[in-house]
Amino acid sequence: MSDTTGDAVRARLVLSYDGTQFAGWAAQPSLRTVQGELEAALERVVRHPVRVTVAGRTDAGVHARGQVAHADIPRDAWDAMPGRSDRSPAQALRDRLDAVTGDDLVIGEVTVAPHGFDARFSATERVYRYRISDSVATRDPLMRTHVAWFPKPLDVDALNAASATLLGLRDFAAFCRAREGATTIRDLKEFSWERPASGADAGLAVATVRADAFCHSMVRSLVGAVTPVGEGRRDLAWLASVASSPERTSAIAVADARGLTLESVAYPADDALASRAVATRARRQSAELGE
Amino acid sequence: MSDTTGDAVRARLVLSYDGTQFAGWAAQPSLRTVQGELEAALERVVRHPVRVTVAGRTDAGVHARGQVAHADIPRDAWDAMPGRSDRSPAQALRDRLDAVTGDDLVIGEVTVAPHGFDARFSATERVYRYRISDSVATRDPLMRTHVAWFPKPLDVDALNAASATLLGLRDFAAFCRAREGATTIRDLKEFSWERPASGADAGLAVATVRADAFCHSMVRSLVGAVTPVGEGRRDLAWLASVASSPERTSAIAVADARGLTLESVAYPADDALASRAVATRARRQSAELGE
Repeated sequence: MSDTTGDAVRARLVLSYDGTQFAGWAAQPSLRTVQGELEAALERVVRHPVRVTVAGRTDAGVHARGQVAHADIPRDAWDAMPGRSDRSPAQALRDRLDAVTGDDLVIGEVTVAPHGFDARFSATERVYRYRISDSVATRDPLMRTHVAWFPKPLDVDALNAASATLLGLRDFAAFCRAREGATTIRDLKEFSWERPASGADAGLAVATVRADAFCHSMVRSLVGAVTPVGEGRRDLAWLASVASSPERTSAIAVADARGLTLESVAYPADDALASRAVATRARRQSAELGE
Repeated sequence: MSDTTGDAVRARLVLSYDGTQFAGWAAQPSLRTVQGELEAALERVVRHPVRVTVAGRTDAGVHARGQVAHADIPRDAWDAMPGRSDRSPAQALRDRLDAVTGDDLVIGEVTVAPHGFDARFSATERVYRYRISDSVATRDPLMRTHVAWFPKPLDVDALNAASATLLGLRDFAAFCRAREGATTIRDLKEFSWERPASGADAGLAVATVRADAFCHSMVRSLVGAVTPVGEGRRDLAWLASVASSPERTSAIAVADARGLTLESVAYPADDALASRAVATRARRQSAELGE
């Protein structure tokens, strides 16, 4: 099921990274970014400049586990990838990329993208988690890179009550850094909190935030809007008031980037990928969005 | 149940730390060490030089979650600790220490030590875990500070078969960096491997290593001795041969410090603390041991 764009093969990459030492996803001159690191690795391995498109353009300090990207690899380079090994070109590309990226960026998987796949525009949902330790008992220095510290205990029921008021298809202007020409309407499908009794997040307050897409710093603003309710300092009337602001408001704090991880990206079935990409691209035409 | 040494109160501290940025436990001039950081914090809070004694003197890069230490705090300073707050002196000391240590060192708990308690000499067991990711699927950049990366798949059954041959009360000279006058006889009570299906360590190869005490770099040498068997490169005959070496041998690699975490320290019931400390101290007299 190989897809070719002209004389190129579109590779689908699954990435995970610790965002601590990256100035976010998007390439910026003289800063270490995930895109910059990955494109440099691709150019080194493929011996040709390669542009990477990603599902979730994470902000500085934000992490990812199931990040998805695509890159178009010239056919000649793709076919030559295994060298003398008996690996597939996709497997060889994964191994070679992983060998030249820093150990805070892991290339989990490379496959040939299905026909019509676009990592950004085919995506139907992004799922983030925000992790908070709000007691000394759960404050683990070995987890501090991806768990935010909150000095006051949070009430998960209060967090859930507050978060539920923000769900649905609506204008999230109060939570978005403004960008000219960019819509701030999003469909927030899930914003729920739990305190797992076991597992990797045992004892933490963990938010799952799921939407079709997110604007810049939106997840951290959502978290920053409900934690004052979770600690009992603000009520739902306050939340309703700040959430209806027509633009980003300083009343809503942006939560610490370290607690935020992009966990997964959803795509439609293969036969719907191309039509989804066309529809998304049309809807956001001329709008440069964070996701 | 407060214990006083002269006009001092003995405090029992439970600590956790990410060892990555520490040159180990033991204070060393001009290096950042856990002991150095903690004693500086104590001196700042107590306004008096305070020496800390620890259960497990971890090597550079090794982590801890349930590390136990004690410190004798002058009675006056102890009583003044709460200031105008209604906290106990122990709670106030914890909060104030935690506020002045780096965020890779967490003061989890401070209590008044029971009579006869010595963090080092009263301890009956130290439990370490060693965590290895041996597949791309389990290689999580957010866990890389405390999970070692192993590029070849490990067979947990083979690891267990190898590890079982090293159990018991015996001379671990082959696994210990030599120190003049120090015994290398230890009682290795558990050395077992598992690959958990769920939880924080899901999919990893995890060793639990439990002994009365450990000599310098012993846990990492034990891991380094059995992983060649786990990857099928060496057999049990080879292991038996290197394990019987009368001194540290280069045939045994010392595993990467990042994978090692001191998880807990066990003590006898309060009424046996003092006698245990006396017995241990006598047995190790004039021997300066790593633990």
